[in-house]
Amino acid sequence: MIVYTSYLFFNTKKRQEFIRITDDITAIVKTSGVTEGTVLVSAMHITAGVYVNDWEEGLIHDFQVWLEKLAPARLDYRHHQTGEDNADAHLKRTIMGHQVVLPITNGKLDLGPWEHLFYAEFDGQRKKRVVVKVMGM
Amino acid sequence: MIVYTSYLFFNTKKRQEFIRITDDITAIVKTSGVTEGTVLVSAMHITAGVYVNDWEEGLIHDFQVWLEKLAPARLDYRHHQTGEDNADAHLKRTIMGHQVVLPITNGKLDLGPWEHLFYAEFDGQRKKRVVVKVMGM
Amino acid sequence: MIVYTSYLFFNTKKRQEFIRITDDITAIVKTSGVTEGTVLVSAMHITAGVYVNDWEEGLIHDFQVWLEKLAPARLDYRHHQTGEDNADAHLKRTIMGHQVVLPITNGKLDLGPWEHLFYAEFDGQRKKRVVVKVMGM
Repeated sequence: MIVYTSYLFFNTKKRQEFIRITDDITAIVKTSGVTEGTVLVSAMHITAGVYVNDWEEGLIHDFQVWLEKLAPARLDYRHHQTGEDNADAHLKRTIMGHQVVLPITNGKLDLGPWEHLFYAEFDGQRKKRVVVKVMGM
Repeated sequence: MIVYTSYLFFNTKKRQEFIRITDDITAIVKTSGVTEGTVLVSAMHITAGVYVNDWEEGLIHDFQVWLEKLAPARLDYRHHQTGEDNADAHLKRTIMGHQVVLPITNGKLDLGPWEHLFYAEFDGQRKKRVVVKVMGM
Repeated sequence: MIVYTSYLFFNTKKRQEFIRITDDITAIVKTSGVTEGTVLVSAMHITAGVYVNDWEEGLIHDFQVWLEKLAPARLDYRHHQTGEDNADAHLKRTIMGHQVVLPITNGKLDLGPWEHLFYAEFDGQRKKRVVVKVMGM
């Protein structure tokens, strides 16, 4: 059994930014030596998400508009009484999900033709981290 | 350590359809020979989901009405400028989740009394796939 | 390879209650003997969730207000024709998620500085269960 751990780091220029990380995970899986198993990809900060969906700029825009509608910024959230201003980021990342588990088959990420992995930053402009845990044989 | 991979295929008659797959996963786990471990069940298409909830037709109807309210079809999504018409399907599957990991204990799916696994199709009428990855011993 | 199973039990006083379980999972991981791997934490009832987010009472309040807005109680849900009155609990737990997989590195839960694990009860006042499955080496 092999268990291999790696981390990805992000420091986005904008407060909200979605970044494709399929290739980063592919590279980590290759390094791990695991040919049959799974890889957990999980945001370590609670105002960021990790999700699988389409690599299409229009849809990414649609996701961002939609999240703003479901969990608007700048409402009078009780969390903001602590001095924070990012309650919406906690809610938005909950909608998108903060982790995925990807299968590895025959030495490769076993993804469908349109599946791409994204890091979704909702409160950026500072250093953030994602843990990548490969398990298998 | 055992790692066993299988796939489920779907081609629904309707655009939107929820299909119970608990028994399919039970059968795959049995074939895998894993008696202690987990099984990842993950949609390989980005307009479909996999979720755990009640096997009750009224609630399934409630889910579908609710999703239509949170992520309506036929809005003026930017994704549709590519020629697609299914942006809502991408959003709906994000609410429901696209994968689950089920525990296997003493050779069986370790589910609560009301837990059932469903495939949620939001843009069907064509061939779709779900990957099933059993890991354990 | 080690696979270790444990369960947490809850019987909340209120219908809705969020309970921090980070320390419970830390203890189970220690008992398991796994130093490199993952732990699956999954609600076994379909009106409860498990999620990772901030340990801050204001934000927990914000989550509960937000969920009531997205999935209100006491609507005329079709599920209620079965005699149930908890359709909203099924929807709310879907937003929050019902399971997480946490990485274990160097013998410890590999969490970011603000990550805490919560059990989210949406239809309590009766005995409920969470399965904890530790896998690794």
